[in-house]
Amino acid sequence: MNSTNRRLFNHAPENSKLVEQEERRDDLGFGTKLTDSSSRLINKDGSFNIIHVNNTLGDRLNIYNRLIMMGWFQFLGWLLIFYLVANFFFASMYMLAGPETLIGIDDKALNGPFWKCFFFSAQTLTTVGYGHISPANFLTSSVAAFESMIGLLAFALATGLLYGRFSRPVAHVRFSKQSVFAPYLDVNGWMFRIINTRANQLIDLQVTVTISRLENKPDGTPFRKYYGLNLERNKIAFFPTNWTLVHPITTESPLFGCTPEDLEKSDTEFLISLQAMDDTFAQSVHSRYSYRYNEVLWGQKFMPMFDSSQHGMVKLDLDKLDDTEDIDLN
Amino acid sequence: MNSTNRRLFNHAPENSKLVEQEERRDDLGFGTKLTDSSSRLINKDGSFNIIHVNNTLGDRLNIYNRLIMMGWFQFLGWLLIFYLVANFFFASMYMLAGPETLIGIDDKALNGPFWKCFFFSAQTLTTVGYGHISPANFLTSSVAAFESMIGLLAFALATGLLYGRFSRPVAHVRFSKQSVFAPYLDVNGWMFRIINTRANQLIDLQVTVTISRLENKPDGTPFRKYYGLNLERNKIAFFPTNWTLVHPITTESPLFGCTPEDLEKSDTEFLISLQAMDDTFAQSVHSRYSYRYNEVLWGQKFMPMFDSSQHGMVKLDLDKLDDTEDIDLN
Amino acid sequence: MNSTNRRLFNHAPENSKLVEQEERRDDLGFGTKLTDSSSRLINKDGSFNIIHVNNTLGDRLNIYNRLIMMGWFQFLGWLLIFYLVANFFFASMYMLAGPETLIGIDDKALNGPFWKCFFFSAQTLTTVGYGHISPANFLTSSVAAFESMIGLLAFALATGLLYGRFSRPVAHVRFSKQSVFAPYLDVNGWMFRIINTRANQLIDLQVTVTISRLENKPDGTPFRKYYGLNLERNKIAFFPTNWTLVHPITTESPLFGCTPEDLEKSDTEFLISLQAMDDTFAQSVHSRYSYRYNEVLWGQKFMPMFDSSQHGMVKLDLDKLDDTEDIDLN
Amino acid sequence: MNSTNRRLFNHAPENSKLVEQEERRDDLGFGTKLTDSSSRLINKDGSFNIIHVNNTLGDRLNIYNRLIMMGWFQFLGWLLIFYLVANFFFASMYMLAGPETLIGIDDKALNGPFWKCFFFSAQTLTTVGYGHISPANFLTSSVAAFESMIGLLAFALATGLLYGRFSRPVAHVRFSKQSVFAPYLDVNGWMFRIINTRANQLIDLQVTVTISRLENKPDGTPFRKYYGLNLERNKIAFFPTNWTLVHPITTESPLFGCTPEDLEKSDTEFLISLQAMDDTFAQSVHSRYSYRYNEVLWGQKFMPMFDSSQHGMVKLDLDKLDDTEDIDLN
Repeated sequence: MNSTNRRLFNHAPENSKLVEQEERRDDLGFGTKLTDSSSRLINKDGSFNIIHVNNTLGDRLNIYNRLIMMGWFQFLGWLLIFYLVANFFFASMYMLAGPETLIGIDDKALNGPFWKCFFFSAQTLTTVGYGHISPANFLTSSVAAFESMIGLLAFALATGLLYGRFSRPVAHVRFSKQSVFAPYLDVNGWMFRIINTRANQLIDLQVTVTISRLENKPDGTPFRKYYGLNLERNKIAFFPTNWTLVHPITTESPLFGCTPEDLEKSDTEFLISLQAMDDTFAQSVHSRYSYRYNEVLWGQKFMPMFDSSQHGMVKLDLDKLDDTEDIDLN
Repeated sequence: MNSTNRRLFNHAPENSKLVEQEERRDDLGFGTKLTDSSSRLINKDGSFNIIHVNNTLGDRLNIYNRLIMMGWFQFLGWLLIFYLVANFFFASMYMLAGPETLIGIDDKALNGPFWKCFFFSAQTLTTVGYGHISPANFLTSSVAAFESMIGLLAFALATGLLYGRFSRPVAHVRFSKQSVFAPYLDVNGWMFRIINTRANQLIDLQVTVTISRLENKPDGTPFRKYYGLNLERNKIAFFPTNWTLVHPITTESPLFGCTPEDLEKSDTEFLISLQAMDDTFAQSVHSRYSYRYNEVLWGQKFMPMFDSSQHGMVKLDLDKLDDTEDIDLN
Repeated sequence: MNSTNRRLFNHAPENSKLVEQEERRDDLGFGTKLTDSSSRLINKDGSFNIIHVNNTLGDRLNIYNRLIMMGWFQFLGWLLIFYLVANFFFASMYMLAGPETLIGIDDKALNGPFWKCFFFSAQTLTTVGYGHISPANFLTSSVAAFESMIGLLAFALATGLLYGRFSRPVAHVRFSKQSVFAPYLDVNGWMFRIINTRANQLIDLQVTVTISRLENKPDGTPFRKYYGLNLERNKIAFFPTNWTLVHPITTESPLFGCTPEDLEKSDTEFLISLQAMDDTFAQSVHSRYSYRYNEVLWGQKFMPMFDSSQHGMVKLDLDKLDDTEDIDLN
Repeated sequence: MNSTNRRLFNHAPENSKLVEQEERRDDLGFGTKLTDSSSRLINKDGSFNIIHVNNTLGDRLNIYNRLIMMGWFQFLGWLLIFYLVANFFFASMYMLAGPETLIGIDDKALNGPFWKCFFFSAQTLTTVGYGHISPANFLTSSVAAFESMIGLLAFALATGLLYGRFSRPVAHVRFSKQSVFAPYLDVNGWMFRIINTRANQLIDLQVTVTISRLENKPDGTPFRKYYGLNLERNKIAFFPTNWTLVHPITTESPLFGCTPEDLEKSDTEFLISLQAMDDTFAQSVHSRYSYRYNEVLWGQKFMPMFDSSQHGMVKLDLDKLDDTEDIDLN
């Protein structure tokens, strides 16, 4: 290849219509090639249905993130395991260094020399250091000096992890289990609703809804297409009550004229992305959710969540989030 | 219902006027159904007047948030209670394990075996570990090893909580107790004013004001409507002095032509949302406030807060925030 | 006053020209009344020249902020003072409880009972707890149990403060001591320049410049007016070298046709607000600065800061930030 | 110079065309003077190729940043060194104060008085305080009281550093080693691709690409010019798979008609700036990268990274990021 025919566009092109068209296409970042209709794109917990292979060990373990994201029981379990393993390890070191150099208490009271070493290790790692067992030669003293430093660092780590777990910004937004097609003003609308389950306020909520569905190229091969859905209202300043999000199905809607069978055939999935500000910590929080075609109820409307029987303060009953009743579509 | 009559819009609609109108309606997120006029929407502390029922235990307790938000005396009180309870608990464990296995000091000096166990527990939990009391058998040593780990974790938690309390971004903005209707240029205006009570600077302040009031549907049922209020100035870059916010009552204002009786009858509430950047910590801070119809003074103007009698630096007297005097409206 | 004449705008106004004009006026938040020309609005350290009086004790002390903002020597000094005061306090408690109940070492070796109590307190507060001094009755044991808890909390606080000090986002931007009027292309420009003195990168810098000057109302009373200055470039994506900011003095500039005497007479101050993103910590950082009329050099231009004599990497000499040389204005 | 000829623009200028033109010029912040073509502007790790000289010692050391940014082995190494140095220092203090005042254990067991002092220091610094060695006079007790405070502060610092290291927001985005010129729709395009190597999701990615190249002024002196490159798509909401960024080479592209030789002669560098939101920590993350003229492959296209052989979940093979194959350009 010489420099002449490597010149970009040696045949002068008009400005490309195809490029302009491509630039206007909606794409959330999944691309057009995920055409297997046996699984959803976004899982119920907001994660994506795509596995990464061949990433490095460090990336795969990603220890800090795991320790931050796992449940509390699991986290405390790992701390306990680490504590036991560390003590068994250092107990073995003291056994090697000679348990007789840990003086001050009779081995037998603690079920023999290993357990004396083990408890001495625990007292060193936590820096409690009673002193009724103490290192009496150079080698044991050195190991103990090292262990107490490790103990402090491990404690520092645990402090950081605990704070990281607590201060991680999470949007405690619950989505209704089903979305519905219900009448909306003089048309119909696709709707779902959300509530904030926590006492800390979320403000400046913003919601984006995109549908993903399979379409066919002129040659018949399927590809995945994305359409942003217009919402009646996509932001609210405060979020003290429930919020029903409505996509009005006007003639401009990509859902206009669809039947339940159409949604199933095209493997339609409603992808929802929510952003808000946690008012307590002034941190931005995000949440993702999705409804597949089989999580859409036709001709159902959401029932009110307010419990207005009592005078005074307004009560919002969180158990009613998923309550719907039959209604005729327009 | 067959697939044909479940087709969305089988009668082709024009694009709905009602939908377009609904999309333009102001709504902060309270909805239109809060028509009980006996209480305000936003409390003086910025919280909302809506109770959530049937949320989960974890969501209801929300321990971390409570410990972060409560007052300092309450917080320190809970720490002390936790410390005492933990020590009573572990003291009971040592009693069960046999107080005679904690050796080194005579029980009587410490008012009997329980208190020996209690103080040993305190010395273990805090890792101070003097050693004049020490565990002399396997069981007691095990409990002590476990307690010292718990002590370290509790300490780690306290560290995180203390840091979380201090570093939480809060806008120390004080609002004038009353808002006023006063002359403004050649018209009148609704006004309130604010000051920053802290030494750390707030920058890039932005304020939004919305009024909420009851109106009647054509059929006479009341519903709540929201109108954004236009402000003379809704942002300032710096906030070194007081700031008087003014909604000029021009013909476009939803308050144009209102009387005090109108405000009361329609249960009018002025909802204020403030956002700023804390310059010291470069964190975004938010504040909410509201004035109800009975917190509006008619024909009063705010008096200057500057104390200009002294030469040199300008003094702003924070006690004058609420000072007003009579003035004739335009 | 009856409800009729309290009706807002009972004489129907046209929409007010004065309101529209006021809405377009530039104001940074200082207001128009700061007309004392003996001092600047923004100090060299970015603080404002306005004192708040009558704020509450808590707001005035603002302990956390002070401990975060003070210099390192001062901070460590306060820690040492706190440590000594706390130990003197608890030593006195042990003296009251009876120093003879702290057993294990002879008082005389430690210069008498008070110092024995003092060192026991230090060993308890830091949880080092050697045990060669130990509490031997109920009262002393109780005080020690309390002190060790206080010690842990104080330590937790110090941890939070140290982290808060280190992680506070600060823009280490140095401004040239003087700003200059120099030729710029075919006109003149007012210029200053800045550098990043730290190794951590600042990205997405944005600068706003406003001038503040005294003008006279038609009746001759002075008031302070603000004008935003148009900049040749007010954002850059990266900040690896120095950046010279230029306000070109075209016919639209509020400085057009000014003499040095005009600037002085009108007490002109150039107020600069800088915002950037610290790339290391992904935190937003802010910086303020100002140049008064007497910090402007006429007919001087900045000299290059690059040291291009050496081959290879480009060197930026931070000492040359303030270097200028004579040049004729256009 | 008198005040008259210091008046800005005493000859009334038309509004300057040169100023308007300059205001429209792209500049990332590198300026036009970096014309040495022997090195790149942005290094592979995102840093800039510019050295700062004459900054202050504090700015040069920038200890906190270094400790946050260095590798884990290096960091732990420094902690160990600090621990040893601190213990040697305090051991020397105890030697000076008289090792015979540290009582309770025979020197010889620990290899002489220095090591007794050393281990006592270690037990004090970590607050483990066994007490089998203890300070028996005023001077030694004072040093120990001071050392234990230093120990607590050092530990507090380590806690902060560890948390700072873990919680620092980093975009783990891997860029393909080479960029390519490949056919794109009916034109050609310059392309590179990226993947997220971590399990924590990145959302709301935004990418900016600018080229920097040398051009000649009318007088023949070279200067560096910058052009923003238009991208087919510069944002995506989610980033679960790989993303191929494409600059379509239409007639508007500054690369239109270029040959490989042109790129080399003009020292062309593609500068990439990426911004995203880390979904786990809700923190903004940034990344920079660049491709020089010799990191561009002509007539190569990227091969798919999906491993679609297996049914069920989609697999993305990270090892295929750099795989390309020959293709004819349009």
